[in-house]
Amino acid sequence: MPSQLPVGPLDQFLLFGDSITEKSNDQEHGFAFASALQNAYMLKLDVINRGFGGYNTNNAVEILPAILPAPSQARVRFLAIFFGANDSNLGPPLVDTQYVSIPDFTQNLRDLISHPLIAAHNPPPRVILIAPPPIEETFIAREDVKNGYTEVKRYNRNTALYAEAVTKVGKETGTPVVDLWSVFMAKAGWVGGYHEDGVPMPGSIAAGFSDVLKSLLDDGLHLTPAGYKIMFEEVLKVIGENWPDQTPGALKSLRDLHGLKFWYEVE
Amino acid sequence: MPSQLPVGPLDQFLLFGDSITEKSNDQEHGFAFASALQNAYMLKLDVINRGFGGYNTNNAVEILPAILPAPSQARVRFLAIFFGANDSNLGPPLVDTQYVSIPDFTQNLRDLISHPLIAAHNPPPRVILIAPPPIEETFIAREDVKNGYTEVKRYNRNTALYAEAVTKVGKETGTPVVDLWSVFMAKAGWVGGYHEDGVPMPGSIAAGFSDVLKSLLDDGLHLTPAGYKIMFEEVLKVIGENWPDQTPGALKSLRDLHGLKFWYEVE
Repeated sequence: MPSQLPVGPLDQFLLFGDSITEKSNDQEHGFAFASALQNAYMLKLDVINRGFGGYNTNNAVEILPAILPAPSQARVRFLAIFFGANDSNLGPPLVDTQYVSIPDFTQNLRDLISHPLIAAHNPPPRVILIAPPPIEETFIAREDVKNGYTEVKRYNRNTALYAEAVTKVGKETGTPVVDLWSVFMAKAGWVGGYHEDGVPMPGSIAAGFSDVLKSLLDDGLHLTPAGYKIMFEEVLKVIGENWPDQTPGALKSLRDLHGLKFWYEVE
Repeated sequence: MPSQLPVGPLDQFLLFGDSITEKSNDQEHGFAFASALQNAYMLKLDVINRGFGGYNTNNAVEILPAILPAPSQARVRFLAIFFGANDSNLGPPLVDTQYVSIPDFTQNLRDLISHPLIAAHNPPPRVILIAPPPIEETFIAREDVKNGYTEVKRYNRNTALYAEAVTKVGKETGTPVVDLWSVFMAKAGWVGGYHEDGVPMPGSIAAGFSDVLKSLLDDGLHLTPAGYKIMFEEVLKVIGENWPDQTPGALKSLRDLHGLKFWYEVE
């Protein structure tokens, strides 16, 4: 019997991102995205969290070789790439700023998706791009001042352009996108797209404090449990739409891959 | 820079057990043990859940080859072995019953710990044995009747003997033990050891319904969030006592293993 058993790690659901990914196993405030995803894919896929707080896509391109297993070590079934929250930070303008321009951000995403180490996996990982969530500027500005920052600058109208860039790369490369920015903004009543046109968008200081966005964005940037819950639902939705044979319900469990019978199966 | 980076999966914290392990990523009711452990070891170890509902140690010995990665795939830093809740089920007396006698249970634990596939890992995995939690008989009997079972028989005085067996194997093999049975029973005021001596132990029908045990045992057998919280604390305590260089605080993060500098490090 043991010789018929599959050996080694299950395929990975690799979560690659910044602090929003890193915090997605933290249950301190409630629902945690990565934990829920692991629970959904229990004994089917191993959810591996590679969230690096503070990272932008320049850092992501550099560290990618360290987070991908070799094909002989584990197969990457899904790779979620979730950056932009730091790339879109407009301050401070130093060499080591988090800021990455939109053209560079776009190219970095392309480089990540088409990286030779990813292409080395066969079958290739199913890549999901996740666009950054909106900014609740009123709240984040207040917190930044409290924390002594004078130069951190995050604006929702600017983050919108990074979300737009993610969707463009998705379209251009045929990569499914979870557009958190648009999903969260729709909850706040905004369906006006990525550009303001006379009317200030929710999340901006001009539009005033947004209760809805604050309910999804813990500190104006990171997600609350309610925000992570939406992220979880959206990721599963994108999987169901693009790879219906890869939903948690469709995959076989490690439990089904061998021939043991148990008391409750033979009663 | 990429050539200096570590490549591939992080070392594993492998959780091997039955449904109590399998459910330990489930946040439906609150705190989930495996999620908390992953959060504590974020970017340090990958927590891999191999919990198989319904399994006893006979099943565990059989499936072990399927859940251990080859040393070339990933190193197992910690291996938690957590069985007994099903082995101690006294009914029904069929070929495919969950029941495993104490001598067989003991030998199975020895066989798991000394399995050649585990010994193939160098350095060897740090094994932690976890003893089964107590039974709240009054509640579980009520639920079993509701679910139509007439023959499932779990008694706390019997589970106690399996917990005792786990501690004996731990002592005999020098393997650290998290004795959930004794920890939970102490919360219920019982420090009388694994054997009744005239006085019925908490959890037994004779002792009456135990609010304390029910607060830790969701359905009389599986853990509540409060129970998982204690399990989390006890596991970290055992790690701190036995391997102080392996606590979450002592380990280096994947983030520390390379030379990137970020804006907040150079300000």
